[in-house]
Amino acid sequence: MPELVTRRVCLLGFGKVGRRLCELVARNDDELAARHGLRLRFVAIGTAGHGSLLAPAGVSAAEALELAADRESERRAFPEPARPGVDLLLASGADVLVEATPLDPQGGRLAIAHLEAALGHDADAITVNKGPIAWDYRRLAALAAAHRRRLLFEGAVMDGCPVFSLFRSCLPDCRLLGFEAVFNSTTNFILDAMGEGGGFAAALAQVQAAGYAEADPAHDIDGHDAAAKIAALANVLMDAGMTPDDVPKDSIRDVTAERVSAARRAGRRLRVLCTAQRNGAGGPVRGAVRLAELGPEHPLFSAGGSTLSVLLRTDLMGTVQIAEHGALPEQTAYGIYSDLIALHEGR
Amino acid sequence: MPELVTRRVCLLGFGKVGRRLCELVARNDDELAARHGLRLRFVAIGTAGHGSLLAPAGVSAAEALELAADRESERRAFPEPARPGVDLLLASGADVLVEATPLDPQGGRLAIAHLEAALGHDADAITVNKGPIAWDYRRLAALAAAHRRRLLFEGAVMDGCPVFSLFRSCLPDCRLLGFEAVFNSTTNFILDAMGEGGGFAAALAQVQAAGYAEADPAHDIDGHDAAAKIAALANVLMDAGMTPDDVPKDSIRDVTAERVSAARRAGRRLRVLCTAQRNGAGGPVRGAVRLAELGPEHPLFSAGGSTLSVLLRTDLMGTVQIAEHGALPEQTAYGIYSDLIALHEGR
Repeated sequence: MPELVTRRVCLLGFGKVGRRLCELVARNDDELAARHGLRLRFVAIGTAGHGSLLAPAGVSAAEALELAADRESERRAFPEPARPGVDLLLASGADVLVEATPLDPQGGRLAIAHLEAALGHDADAITVNKGPIAWDYRRLAALAAAHRRRLLFEGAVMDGCPVFSLFRSCLPDCRLLGFEAVFNSTTNFILDAMGEGGGFAAALAQVQAAGYAEADPAHDIDGHDAAAKIAALANVLMDAGMTPDDVPKDSIRDVTAERVSAARRAGRRLRVLCTAQRNGAGGPVRGAVRLAELGPEHPLFSAGGSTLSVLLRTDLMGTVQIAEHGALPEQTAYGIYSDLIALHEGR
Repeated sequence: MPELVTRRVCLLGFGKVGRRLCELVARNDDELAARHGLRLRFVAIGTAGHGSLLAPAGVSAAEALELAADRESERRAFPEPARPGVDLLLASGADVLVEATPLDPQGGRLAIAHLEAALGHDADAITVNKGPIAWDYRRLAALAAAHRRRLLFEGAVMDGCPVFSLFRSCLPDCRLLGFEAVFNSTTNFILDAMGEGGGFAAALAQVQAAGYAEADPAHDIDGHDAAAKIAALANVLMDAGMTPDDVPKDSIRDVTAERVSAARRAGRRLRVLCTAQRNGAGGPVRGAVRLAELGPEHPLFSAGGSTLSVLLRTDLMGTVQIAEHGALPEQTAYGIYSDLIALHEGR
């Protein structure tokens, strides 16, 4: 049995993902110790409006869940008043931040502030928020390097499959030349619902009723979510230094039911296709979100609904494709879990 | 720049894969040193009938290629007579064996002997031959563990994508519950050629003429290759302790052109589907190679030709799919290269 190392975790965000993380860690506490020599202790848990936990001595994941369960009848999950994440992080003496606050379409400024505070104060940082990676990756990576800390984010893009660690750990020395992906499930659902015969507005309402689209669906429909995923992947895997603003975006608002039906009759599917490639050696990376009709011969034809898929074109290993089939909060939480192990093992 | 560690490599097999490995290492020698602190020196290279190289002081990959190029007009690639791989390995004082001898449908007995010799004499071992993993994995893994050596085989199954290291490095603590895959390109090509209207014999001849089937195609057509891949994956990722003999196999010999055409008219595809799952917790793993008709809703519908794909059903990360698009000798060689780095980095 390896020697036990304790990591002191500050968890910001205790929604579905934060809770699932605690449940997963609680269930696997023995395995983490026996297999990896890792003991995770929560020194702080922050929420926006449901109180906070500050426990510099550290509590186990099971204890954290018990504390929260005890208070479920009350307004707060945790005994102390909610306080700003940065304050909580610094007061806790954490050596790793897990940033799982809700997504913020405005570029994740809150998450960025949390990550900066961690990296600037000798803590490693894990985030499941794609905002910081899409909008500010180069600066945050430089900050981490300057402080000899690590920034990991497996759950930030395609949280149902390990796309970043695939590249980092399984494709050493490979260069990513470009990628092609179906990245957004909401638009998949809407385009498929239109294929059943309705127009855009009816399809959107149907998909919203089924819980597959936000109340304000513009972020998905107009390509902003897809552009953020393109920028995040390109920033990390191609050193693109881009933001979602650099990515031209097709919206699906003006797609007609006739167009979707015609494609379907021809055995083809309309999809929001996300691409990036480098223009010439050392040239800039160009991304695009565009509406495309995919035939059955296309490797992304099977992507649809909550099946998201990316084709990674590499220099040494040809084209490798990885896909997720649904991404539940459990899977996002597992992304954090695998990042915690990767941190511990120096991967 | 990290301190340089030299690994002494004995390469058995100098066909396309062995040569491509030397070319890749020669091209990346500086990167291996600068990025990984790894220097690879070849202390022996063995071939079946084209001579051998024994150079206990070690030559670089570029030097090995020059030696071989100098002799291309002669019968031999290397100056010394060919000799048994085990002799060469032991005489060389290698600390890592790269086993890249040609595939041997009879279970890879020669490759197994090479791996045994390496692991039993304090060398790590890498193989791209699926035979040892399909037929004898449990014993070889135990031998490696007893000698505190490692056995890696990224290029042995799905050599165009990193399926083993995906599991090992990106899905820590995940259990594989089962998998579903299209694993054999020859049968893909034959079934698709039959869809153009010909019968089995005509399709086989066409695919053989195009170089996509062996002169003796029984190994592919009767499911032996697919069963070996199932056993290899199940042995490594599910501790199945099975052999290809344990896997029932459909042959495609009796498929009629009418059946293929009918499926195609219905927008469906006939495929040789490879599956494995554990029967109950702790129960045995059952594999099967069976002919199946896949509709466009199936996640393996896009697999075909040289696109091979596997759906991995896990306990913690849901279903993750990984696919390769063609597998050239360059990619098999890259699998070895990534294994060499994984060995060096203790991954």
